[in-house]
Amino acid sequence: MSATLQSWRPRVRPSGTRPAIAVTVGEPAGIGPEISIRAAWAMRNEVNCVLLGDAAFLAMTASYIDPAIRLSALSLQAVRNGGLPHFGPGAISVIDVPLAAHVAPGTLDKENGRAVLATLDAAIEGVAAGWFEAVATAPLQKSTINDAGVPFSGHTEYFAGKTGAAQVVMLLAGQPLQAMPPAGEAAPPAPPPLRVALATTHLPLKDVAGALTVEGLGATLDIIAHDLKTKFGIAAPRILVAGLNPHAGENGYLGREDLDVVAPAIAAAQARGIAATGPYPADTLFQPKYLQHADCVLAMYHDQGLPVLKYATFGRGVNITLGLPLIRTSVDHGTALDLAAQGLGRADCGSMEEAIATARRMADAVQAGLPNSGVRA
Amino acid sequence: MSATLQSWRPRVRPSGTRPAIAVTVGEPAGIGPEISIRAAWAMRNEVNCVLLGDAAFLAMTASYIDPAIRLSALSLQAVRNGGLPHFGPGAISVIDVPLAAHVAPGTLDKENGRAVLATLDAAIEGVAAGWFEAVATAPLQKSTINDAGVPFSGHTEYFAGKTGAAQVVMLLAGQPLQAMPPAGEAAPPAPPPLRVALATTHLPLKDVAGALTVEGLGATLDIIAHDLKTKFGIAAPRILVAGLNPHAGENGYLGREDLDVVAPAIAAAQARGIAATGPYPADTLFQPKYLQHADCVLAMYHDQGLPVLKYATFGRGVNITLGLPLIRTSVDHGTALDLAAQGLGRADCGSMEEAIATARRMADAVQAGLPNSGVRA
Ligand SMILES: [Zn+2]
Ligand SMILES: [Zn+2]
Repeated sequence: MSATLQSWRPRVRPSGTRPAIAVTVGEPAGIGPEISIRAAWAMRNEVNCVLLGDAAFLAMTASYIDPAIRLSALSLQAVRNGGLPHFGPGAISVIDVPLAAHVAPGTLDKENGRAVLATLDAAIEGVAAGWFEAVATAPLQKSTINDAGVPFSGHTEYFAGKTGAAQVVMLLAGQPLQAMPPAGEAAPPAPPPLRVALATTHLPLKDVAGALTVEGLGATLDIIAHDLKTKFGIAAPRILVAGLNPHAGENGYLGREDLDVVAPAIAAAQARGIAATGPYPADTLFQPKYLQHADCVLAMYHDQGLPVLKYATFGRGVNITLGLPLIRTSVDHGTALDLAAQGLGRADCGSMEEAIATARRMADAVQAGLPNSGVRA
Repeated sequence: MSATLQSWRPRVRPSGTRPAIAVTVGEPAGIGPEISIRAAWAMRNEVNCVLLGDAAFLAMTASYIDPAIRLSALSLQAVRNGGLPHFGPGAISVIDVPLAAHVAPGTLDKENGRAVLATLDAAIEGVAAGWFEAVATAPLQKSTINDAGVPFSGHTEYFAGKTGAAQVVMLLAGQPLQAMPPAGEAAPPAPPPLRVALATTHLPLKDVAGALTVEGLGATLDIIAHDLKTKFGIAAPRILVAGLNPHAGENGYLGREDLDVVAPAIAAAQARGIAATGPYPADTLFQPKYLQHADCVLAMYHDQGLPVLKYATFGRGVNITLGLPLIRTSVDHGTALDLAAQGLGRADCGSMEEAIATARRMADAVQAGLPNSGVRA
């Protein structure tokens, strides 16, 4: 399976069909199943969301959300045998990945850990087989899987391992809200989508400086440039790189890493034809006058890039994994077990809809790059 | 002089007068003189901006900006002798602090370094003497002063040293632009002012974790709470504290400092009656739903707090020094020598106006807290 995915060949979308996107419903005791169903139903005219989860549990959940929601469930083996049928938008497609135990919303049960993993495996299998153009994942709980006896450090790492990706890059993206102009001033130009990639992700702050290398940053820039071209349809992606230190190190007065590591990595990437520039001070970089000339910001670490992304997008950011031989998006929130425990109807499916819509736009960009495709970017 | 300022006693503003605010015009070869004159003239009906700088140079500069601008210059000695006269808004007051050498805009000259420092000294003297209710500073160039043979590490440090302040805290504040709601959604509530204080400022990133101590953070929280009460008129300031590590350390999985340093400092501050809470993940903290219940965010370091502040305020943030026995605000940009070299009329005085307006609001809050004052917050 990895071999197939390392040489992922997207297929031309059959004309007249909606793009099929796998939606793994995540931790069953969290809000994942509810927001997956709500988002899939709301978007059914544009996207064929194929839910990967326990068909009976999803049918019961859907009936409580809204009796009008229709599901069409298939077994994984049936799809293996005959391919994914092109059902119409009257019902949400479900591929049954059965749970092992009854679900009590809000209460984790390690008995179901392996079933959650099986939905990820089915998503990867389905991309390799050409059933799905992309994968959008609802939040899962790492501990459920670890408690089930499977070492598991996260969604992203699991996809990387299963698809043979040597390195992945976390990208958060969203549409900034347009600011109303101050009284008496003209409206600022509509902001372009904001995309923030991270050079390091979940590290203690004290370990960040030591984790940066010229080679690692170079590989990160390569992945960003490659994926913005191939999965976003941006012909010559422009990447603004933040400095590690305040004021990008002020010529070495505030730390040497920007001179010794970040700048050489940018110079080397430029020599490879990548339109990366910097390092820029992170506090001035996120200004409209700079962002409007950029396709992506590369922040050096989690809290340098994500507060402004989440502020700007009002919590509607989508997490995209670059470097995988497939399109994978995810919500930027957790399982919200507390909310799930209170019953259905409390979760906001906006982030899930954004994750699916982003996966769809990316799938369209991939289609537009294929010979003989009818999809235009 | 320090002794006087350590026991700063704001005086009641004479009724019928505009608040007098010292405006140090900064590096003469930069944009400081121009933006100081423009801002003082634009705001003359609300604020008596008293420019501290070379009277002849400022008069010449003003005449090129707009021949309608009037200046009334006084010598420092005259003000020492007779106090600051309450001129009307027909002219900008100037206290003459002579330069040593001719100014070539855009070109630094160490001959003028000591004169720049003398404007800061005059501002402090004037607050102690009761001439000024606050100080707003235009940008200066550290190197000019150091090249003049005076060790100088920055505006803020200089004010702290001269006034005997044991510790100061950098606060950036501004009014976030109101976001236009997405199509079909209701407008979000108007955002409250955003205030971001920093636990550490201009340190290499690798030194940040080691620079945090329970005692240091405690003193920082004390200063923020004290100054928000006394200089902002906020009776019971609520402070949201960001964690140092991503996700505030995730219970120690992503670094111990949030458990071992930040949380105990918050608990101790709470025990002293300060409404500080946290540590919170920095990437979720800056959401309207949290910010609307807070008066200030304490970020642990420069690039954790300032990118979102500057993004939200569209570069209209004001730098406020807490912990001083006086009100001091400043613009959040530099001397822009390149712009100054191109001639007058290119600099935007918006940030200077904001710095003066913020100083004025703070001065009003101080007045409202004085017995017998006619000013209401
Ligand atoms: Zn700075
Ligand atoms: Zn995170």
